[in-house]
Amino acid sequence: MNILVLNCGSSSIKYKLFEMKSKDVIAQGVVEKIGMKGSFLKLTLPNNQKVTLEGEVLEHRAGIEYILGVLLSEKYGCIKSLDEIEAVGHRVVHGGEYFNESVLINDEVIQSLIDCIEIAPLHNPPNLKGIYAIQELMPKTPQVAVFDTAFHQTMPDYAYMYGIPRSLYEKYGIRRYGFHGTSHRYVSQRVCEFLGVPFEEQRIITAHIGNGGSVTAIKNGKSIDTSMGMTPVEGLIMGTRSGDIDPGVVSFIMEKEHMGTQGISTLLNKFSGVLGISGISSDMREIENGYYEGNERAVLAMNMYNYRIKKFVGAYTAALGGCDILVFTGGVGENQALTREYVCKNMEYMGIELDEELNNSVRAKEIVISKPTSKVKVLIIPTDEELTIAQDTLEILTVKK
Amino acid sequence: MNILVLNCGSSSIKYKLFEMKSKDVIAQGVVEKIGMKGSFLKLTLPNNQKVTLEGEVLEHRAGIEYILGVLLSEKYGCIKSLDEIEAVGHRVVHGGEYFNESVLINDEVIQSLIDCIEIAPLHNPPNLKGIYAIQELMPKTPQVAVFDTAFHQTMPDYAYMYGIPRSLYEKYGIRRYGFHGTSHRYVSQRVCEFLGVPFEEQRIITAHIGNGGSVTAIKNGKSIDTSMGMTPVEGLIMGTRSGDIDPGVVSFIMEKEHMGTQGISTLLNKFSGVLGISGISSDMREIENGYYEGNERAVLAMNMYNYRIKKFVGAYTAALGGCDILVFTGGVGENQALTREYVCKNMEYMGIELDEELNNSVRAKEIVISKPTSKVKVLIIPTDEELTIAQDTLEILTVKK
Repeated sequence: MNILVLNCGSSSIKYKLFEMKSKDVIAQGVVEKIGMKGSFLKLTLPNNQKVTLEGEVLEHRAGIEYILGVLLSEKYGCIKSLDEIEAVGHRVVHGGEYFNESVLINDEVIQSLIDCIEIAPLHNPPNLKGIYAIQELMPKTPQVAVFDTAFHQTMPDYAYMYGIPRSLYEKYGIRRYGFHGTSHRYVSQRVCEFLGVPFEEQRIITAHIGNGGSVTAIKNGKSIDTSMGMTPVEGLIMGTRSGDIDPGVVSFIMEKEHMGTQGISTLLNKFSGVLGISGISSDMREIENGYYEGNERAVLAMNMYNYRIKKFVGAYTAALGGCDILVFTGGVGENQALTREYVCKNMEYMGIELDEELNNSVRAKEIVISKPTSKVKVLIIPTDEELTIAQDTLEILTVKK
Repeated sequence: MNILVLNCGSSSIKYKLFEMKSKDVIAQGVVEKIGMKGSFLKLTLPNNQKVTLEGEVLEHRAGIEYILGVLLSEKYGCIKSLDEIEAVGHRVVHGGEYFNESVLINDEVIQSLIDCIEIAPLHNPPNLKGIYAIQELMPKTPQVAVFDTAFHQTMPDYAYMYGIPRSLYEKYGIRRYGFHGTSHRYVSQRVCEFLGVPFEEQRIITAHIGNGGSVTAIKNGKSIDTSMGMTPVEGLIMGTRSGDIDPGVVSFIMEKEHMGTQGISTLLNKFSGVLGISGISSDMREIENGYYEGNERAVLAMNMYNYRIKKFVGAYTAALGGCDILVFTGGVGENQALTREYVCKNMEYMGIELDEELNNSVRAKEIVISKPTSKVKVLIIPTDEELTIAQDTLEILTVKK
């Protein structure tokens, strides 16, 4: 049984086709630069060889047709008919307050996604385009929406409300929603399986850190707080996003630089964070190189990036009343020992004892990196959002049948 | 020896006259509504009786003349000649990166205060008006500036820089400065005197919480992080200030509500925080009443206010690598047992054990409120910013002579 997972962004579509018995990825790739010059489809063959196929892709429907064509093709394909795809699972960024779990897509769900465009103007429209395209191209195939926000819908009001007039929540839905929910849910459940402890009885902090990043506090299986907010710009310092800043600074910059709301939004989302601080790169691997070379601005960017994560771990430990498990995941969380070490240093007061030697020698695998005596178990758990989407899709289909 | 302490706001001037041998306040009061209809001077007599004197006060110089006149008056005065005032100490809000301690005011200092107007457009101009007025009215009397920001100048760069392009720091000085420094310094030093421990060897968290509020992390006598930023709107949820919110929410509100930078600034500074959440009041005493009456919005405002403080205590404990002393001060910190209890609840993981019964029975006095077994000493230390300003002033005069 095959399930196709789609992640439709504004100018790209990532896909993975899973065979669900083995959970194997039998095809994967990405269409890039949709609607721009030089669009292409890049696929990764089962032998890990990458193939780039050029071709103008003007909009999302054409991109998805392209993907389906490649899946069917003799040279690069793996299926003979679209009927072999039993369902399509979509990553949907914003489910607002409508969805606290994954759902089978129907007209009502689509209407709710349209209603969420107001709070996610950049993300939900391409997600919807992907859904419409599959409706047209594979009209009989069930589709499932898996939301970035759903896992965080369990947050208590005092964690999700902002300190602004309540009318703004009532009129526009301004509140903390949080993102990366699929990843935080996956790694927090997976870490409990891995350790053989009950998910419903743990105080877990998950640090999903990469180019984007968020930290989540999970108590007895439920997200109780998370660092991203109504938009993905809040919280941690990220590759190009500012994370938390003085709200007074936002209007100050707008005045001084004669910027409008679009301008400041672009500044804080695309030119800030590690890129803006360092002036070097948004990529933590390059910042790490600069750090070891003693480049002052790389050192500052690295310290700020790490210090912010450490403060969230501290804050969420207070929110949880103590921490049992700390998980690092995401590109940086899985691969950058330096960041994990910084976050865990001098944290004995809360029960963290990192095995520094072990931490330095591992990357991107499921492993405990705290000492056996550490009260808080610290682990690396590589995330797998696509597999989670495929599994949610399978589960919903099975329940339906 | 008498020292006059002035705190000049945009439409008010608070004053206290100290006799420095005894540290007694020998006169105090406030001029309100400067430049508005119905301005008045309200003074507190030594027997605690309050007297209101009406009279049009069009600008700050007239307000200070009024104060000096009352100090000299037969009926309400306590001095015979202005010569009996040896020096004037001013609370100055923003010292930028120029000042890391209190200074004797001279032309160069005044120029630096003028340079800081750009980053503190609301606060520094009235402070300067007070300084100019004393120069004119008491030209031979030395004046000292005591800065709200100075104590925080020891923060490391990774704590004070924001995740935005570095050029904005270089062009406009956009960074975290922090405020309430005089209070955080006073209570952190005082708590060490009170406990008989060396200030230079403690990890202290001071929660100055009232209508405004900030939390500071102090390591070995130095501020290493604080919750207010370039402006006083960042950090905690306050009476009318939002505290931390998603930076993306700022531009979102501006777009939806067709607001300019002035509008959003007013919204976040004057109509947000506890007032905006509760719709009842900015005063935590009224919120506390509503909380006990079960008013849902008061409950939410109280929980948000308390939860935010708790998260900062957690975050700063991580920044400090553990906490030795936690101090509550400010109007709410000294008087509201409920907030102290919320912040300290389930914090055994970091060594806090509050004596809840004792906490409930005390207010506004120097006292340890943690259990004898508590690793973290938790105390109430009433703040005294004016006395600190007077003492700084005295110290600078003594060094000068």
